[in-house]
Order: sequence, then structure tokens, then C-alpha cells
Amino acid sequence: MNKKPLAVVLVSGGLDSCVTAAIAGQTYSLAFLHLNYGQLTEKREHQAFLDLADAFNVEHRLDVDVTYLAKIGGSSLTDATMRVPDADLNSTEIPSSYVPFRNANILAIAVSWAEVIGASKLFIGAVSEDSSGYPDCRPEFFKAFNQVIATGTKPDTNIEIETPIIHLKKEEIIQQGMALNAPLALSWSCYQSEEKACGVCDSCALRLRGFKRAGLEDPIPYQTRPDYT
Amino acid sequence: MNKKPLAVVLVSGGLDSCVTAAIAGQTYSLAFLHLNYGQLTEKREHQAFLDLADAFNVEHRLDVDVTYLAKIGGSSLTDATMRVPDADLNSTEIPSSYVPFRNANILAIAVSWAEVIGASKLFIGAVSEDSSGYPDCRPEFFKAFNQVIATGTKPDTNIEIETPIIHLKKEEIIQQGMALNAPLALSWSCYQSEEKACGVCDSCALRLRGFKRAGLEDPIPYQTRPDYT
Repeated sequence: MNKKPLAVVLVSGGLDSCVTAAIAGQTYSLAFLHLNYGQLTEKREHQAFLDLADAFNVEHRLDVDVTYLAKIGGSSLTDATMRVPDADLNSTEIPSSYVPFRNANILAIAVSWAEVIGASKLFIGAVSEDSSGYPDCRPEFFKAFNQVIATGTKPDTNIEIETPIIHLKKEEIIQQGMALNAPLALSWSCYQSEEKACGVCDSCALRLRGFKRAGLEDPIPYQTRPDYT
Repeated sequence: MNKKPLAVVLVSGGLDSCVTAAIAGQTYSLAFLHLNYGQLTEKREHQAFLDLADAFNVEHRLDVDVTYLAKIGGSSLTDATMRVPDADLNSTEIPSSYVPFRNANILAIAVSWAEVIGASKLFIGAVSEDSSGYPDCRPEFFKAFNQVIATGTKPDTNIEIETPIIHLKKEEIIQQGMALNAPLALSWSCYQSEEKACGVCDSCALRLRGFKRAGLEDPIPYQTRPDYT
């Protein structure tokens, strides 16, 4: 008999969602939600989602097709005619991989599902530091969204967004994942490639730098492992 | 040369969205967004959307498939195994036709599109009075969502939700539509049928009562026209 309350976890299949799931699993029974928003590496991310769901023994799983984001366009992640940029970790500009208002779309879906299945929390592995250019990754965005949930759901519904790693640096996320025995080797972060991670996109660069700073070796395969410091 | 600023209008194909478009068109150049969220009468509503887009000479049109709402379930509008209830206009309970958090899903999509095409307003024909049971139709929900937009979009993006008919009664919406020459005969409201409106679902009942109170006859065909007072 599992008497833990239920929480929805947004699981892209990446490192951050893997560690977020491990944190959520300490207190909650988990339901995993994966979004296919038409990203170039969706097939590989979906495999990571399934591998993680198996590793966490998750029964409640939902895949949602949000490829309308590709139709709306405006991002190199979903528009095959735009090139995914190589990493520039020192840039303060909003990267072209930004899908406008993507997290609001994702959260809205997650809340709808959470209300139907009776979950009381919604975990998302957003990180403020390494995505300072994405407006919908900031704490004030999630705070505002919690207010939308409070006003836009049934009176007896009580769902709150939790962002347990939002203030952590990548190396701290990796260390916390290790401490919780999170299956980091099953996660996938690369925006560009599906067999071996490219090593040069923003997401690979942040991940590799995080492992280096944590003094650990990333267990997934790379085409190239530049020395990000 | 059209120098009006651009506004996205959410056009279900119903009466309220028709009148909302007429109001928005006085000040803005229009972009029409239609959502297929798996409702039983989608085909007929989509036809109404196209007819209205033609009538308003709208070039920017976007259809988005949000049938994941049907997958998530929980509503008689999208779940073929649940019966759409007959109208009970005096009930204060949340009707089973409620799709959890539907408007948040719709608004998130609309904001993503508005940011890509450079629209500054987002019109939605939500009505507080006749949907008091739907939490995501209330003014406080839209106010909270405007805050989410402000925090979750690029710094130079300025998009605001407008709900011009939210405080109107149905008969006032119809009267305003008439005053603006809105093509009400092209709109479709029935939740249940596609050839002739059923006349008995909540949406038909509200529409018929509105026309009656406005002292006008609804130009669309009905299977039955009960006398709602």
C-alpha cells in the first residue's frame, strides 16, 4: 500500500528532470509527464523518459504531443531550417533555442492532468542560473503561474508547482543526483544528436561543465568532449 | 496599407468569439486562432471558424490540435463515454463539460503565437456570468494570467489579454454583435450536434435565451427550440 500523495513530474529525459524526479520521489508517489514539442532529438529524449520511468517504477505515464509549437515556430529547437547554435555560456542574450512561452504551455498541460488524476504537486526541473535568458524559467514566472492555478482550477483543487533545483548550479544538481542515486546515465540532454551527444550545443556544454566542476565523469557517450571551464 | 496593430483573437466559432472579433476589429488588425481540443462538434466549429475568418478578411489563421485534452480526459466535451448534460441554467455546480484548466492551455498557445507574429493583444470571448462554474473564465484568472505573460515572455514583448465581453449578459453580447454587424449567422455554439443545433445543451440554452431576451430570433437552425426564460 502506497500512501504517499501523488505528484506530477515533468520529465524531458534530461539530467535536471532526472534529479528532480529523485527529489520528488522522496516524498511523493510519482506520475511522469513527457512532452513531444517537435524538438530535433525527441526520439532520444522519449527513450530517456521511458528508461527513467522504468528506473523509478512509475505507473502513471503520459505522453503529450505539443508539436503545435513547431507549427508556431520561432525557435531553432523546433524549426529545422534554423541551426541550433553552438554554446556561448557567457552570452546574456536570449538564445534562439528559446520556444516562446514554452513552459507556460507545458505547465498548463501538467495542471490539467494533475487535476484529473488528483495530484497535489507539480515538479519541474527548471534552473534559473543556466537559463537566465529564458524568461519562463525564472522563479517569478513560477510564482505567477501558481496564482493562475489557484484562480483557474476548481475550489477544492490544490496544486502547486515545485522547482526544487531552480537555484542550484549544474554541479550541485549532479552532486544531489549522485547523493540520491538518481540514474543519471539514463538521462539525455543533447539538443542536436541522438546516438552520441554532440558535446557542443548549449545543453551539452552546461552538462559537461557541470560534471567537470563536480569532479565527476559524465557516463553518457559524446562525439567530442570540449574542456568547458 | 494597414497600420493597425496586430491582435490575436481566439475563435472557437461560437457566438461569443464572433462578437469579440467584431469588437477587436474596430481597433486591431486580426489574427485568428482556432483550437481543436477534441470536442464532439469540432468539425462544425472549425467550419464556423473558417466562415468567420472569411467574413472578417483575416489572413493570419492558425489551427492548433490540442486533442491531448481528450487524452487527459475528465470532461464530457472530450470524453465520448460521458453524456453531455442537458442544460440546467440555475445550477451553481461546475458542469461536467468543464475541461480542467482548458483556458490556460489555450492562452499559453495564443501567447506563443502572439510573440512570434508580433501581436500586442490577445482577445478571448470569455463570459463570466454564464460560466460561473468554470474557474478559468473569471476576471481574476485572466488578471493572474496577464502577470504570467509579463514574467514569462521576452522583456521587449508586451502582450495583454483583453476580455471585452466578460461582464456582459448573453443578450447584451447579441445586441452588441448586431450593432457591429457581426456575422452571427455564421457562428456555431452547440456542444452536441453539427447539422442543426440540438437546442438542449447548456450552450444552446444560453444562446436561445439570449436571443429571446434580446427580442431577436437566432438565425441558425435548431432541432428543437425550447422556450428558455
